Amino acid sequence: MTLGEPDLEALARGCAVFGGGGGGDPTLGYVMAREAIRRNGPVPVVDLDELPDDGLILPVAMVGAPTVIEEKIPNGSEGERIQAVYERHFGRPVVAFAVAELGGVEGMLPVAWAAHARLPLADCDLMGRAFPEIHMCTPNLHGLPIGPVVVTDERGNIATFTSIDAAWAERLVRPTCTAMGSCASLAIYPMTAARARGAVVRGSLTRAVQVGRLLEAGDPVAVLEAEVGAVRLIEGKVADVERWTTQGFARGSAVIEGFGDDAGRLLRLEFQNENLVALLDGEVVASVPDVITVLDHGGGAVVSERLRYGQRVTVISFPCHPAWRTATGLGLVGPRAWGYDLDYVPVERIHAARA
Amino acid sequence: MTLGEPDLEALARGCAVFGGGGGGDPTLGYVMAREAIRRNGPVPVVDLDELPDDGLILPVAMVGAPTVIEEKIPNGSEGERIQAVYERHFGRPVVAFAVAELGGVEGMLPVAWAAHARLPLADCDLMGRAFPEIHMCTPNLHGLPIGPVVVTDERGNIATFTSIDAAWAERLVRPTCTAMGSCASLAIYPMTAARARGAVVRGSLTRAVQVGRLLEAGDPVAVLEAEVGAVRLIEGKVADVERWTTQGFARGSAVIEGFGDDAGRLLRLEFQNENLVALLDGEVVASVPDVITVLDHGGGAVVSERLRYGQRVTVISFPCHPAWRTATGLGLVGPRAWGYDLDYVPVERIHAARA
Repeated sequence: MTLGEPDLEALARGCAVFGGGGGGDPTLGYVMAREAIRRNGPVPVVDLDELPDDGLILPVAMVGAPTVIEEKIPNGSEGERIQAVYERHFGRPVVAFAVAELGGVEGMLPVAWAAHARLPLADCDLMGRAFPEIHMCTPNLHGLPIGPVVVTDERGNIATFTSIDAAWAERLVRPTCTAMGSCASLAIYPMTAARARGAVVRGSLTRAVQVGRLLEAGDPVAVLEAEVGAVRLIEGKVADVERWTTQGFARGSAVIEGFGDDAGRLLRLEFQNENLVALLDGEVVASVPDVITVLDHGGGAVVSERLRYGQRVTVISFPCHPAWRTATGLGLVGPRAWGYDLDYVPVERIHAARA
Repeated sequence: MTLGEPDLEALARGCAVFGGGGGGDPTLGYVMAREAIRRNGPVPVVDLDELPDDGLILPVAMVGAPTVIEEKIPNGSEGERIQAVYERHFGRPVVAFAVAELGGVEGMLPVAWAAHARLPLADCDLMGRAFPEIHMCTPNLHGLPIGPVVVTDERGNIATFTSIDAAWAERLVRPTCTAMGSCASLAIYPMTAARARGAVVRGSLTRAVQVGRLLEAGDPVAVLEAEVGAVRLIEGKVADVERWTTQGFARGSAVIEGFGDDAGRLLRLEFQNENLVALLDGEVVASVPDVITVLDHGGGAVVSERLRYGQRVTVISFPCHPAWRTATGLGLVGPRAWGYDLDYVPVERIHAARA
């Protein structure tokens, strides 16, 4: 696959659905990717099997509060700066960028950086969705080292972390990101193509583009039911949003009042950048690591920082990547990892029980 | 000069006086330096002129709250780990460690690391005293780059910062230090001997040992009057101490009630690790960048985290290194840099006016 200007909208739309309320609004990333492609041409998206075994891949992302990312925008040379640090560190060239997490801005910015560097994008990501913390990546489940993690801001400051484990990388990167102004650009899990093959979520970009295309054409809920196994949680109106930007995250909750068939029902969503738990009339109907996404009436995903009173939305949920449903996966990103005292039940199982 | 076990006490005593309430209690550093010297032999202290022009020097220190440093002790391999990062970065060996700031633990730990690495110590420091923030170094006045700054903790985490300026290094290092548990080890201003010669405070270690030796023998106040131009501010009893460990610093204030000739007088000391301002009966009698040191009855300097109710002390102040009295120097570390709305007056001038 090659990502040209005409593919960006489908990619953005698809990534936003997988983002589960996080990963940032795609607009900024879309504009940056479009401009980079106009200047340097389309970006090849290559399967990991097409890359040389020892080829160095850089999964990149923005880190921080999406509420801030929209206002404190990258200066465009972040990818280049990060690439230079790794090439110096490893003494060899980067062969491809990768998307660290699927999400609006998170799926688009790597396109801009790849176009800028005239490098391909590996067709994969590290989560199969978006998560707010940097150690929440499938390579962590395979024991791959997260570092060196290179963080940079739009001023040109660079911080490099080699930590004793992935959780410590998160602990050290987060306050750096906060000190940089609550958002920054980074690369994590630099790895060879050979290492990546068994440790990442493969085919993410082609899948996001495919889902994005179908969403443009058909009924969003029907498309997502068919394509990703989505379950409809509620259709309604946003009645309340609480949101605060703190410790580098956008945290909060929203209440959606059902209408139509769902009249009289209340859905409560809790989020930390991404939607973490959905409670329908007080009962858990979906939780991390399954993806919970709010769709607006145009079928586009609404990121948590854009939720607002009065919005008419449909909330869906769909199964996460199987890696997250293992004991190790749930230990890292299951409900208890977020402080929720509840057992994870796969969303399709909750749905079957309720039906 | 060579620093052997018998010299350590004089060095510790001297450094603590220059530390101005900061730089940490020397006990921990003393023990680490003594053990390293017992294992690997004495540490040569060499003048910068004796080092090759392009020889790489690493000024090292602990950063953070001295209240924490005493309880969360280094594991001993910090110097080694930091050295390895720089040698990889610059592609050549480190020829000497240096003391980044004169102070109790700050003057001793580099001795331990130098002994461990079997490297000499350059006879210099970057402040001529201790300051709480890492950009408060004389090389900053000469436009030398502070980075890469390498920070490590006792667990083995390593963070490297290349910042757009020295103030940004401080802004990024501080929360990392806090995340590491409010104290960490670091190196700043890595530089060649040629660069260092005109940009650092030279002869610090020999001077600290010399002052430390004299203090062991004679009346402390008389020794310091003669050796460093000290002025006696008050002799009295600590009547009140407020101290809180916050944002990686030990901040607070102390009140000393005069006795003897000073009966009826009150001295208020304000500190952020180091003593910043001394007010006698409400009038400023000494302020940063001049050094304000509290001496106990044995003539030893009392670090701010050890001040306690009922202690009998003499408070002295003496002129800082001339570099700090320039307009640039005062811009960086004068009273206004700490939020005090007062003009700096050299301590000997205040003293002459009051006499």
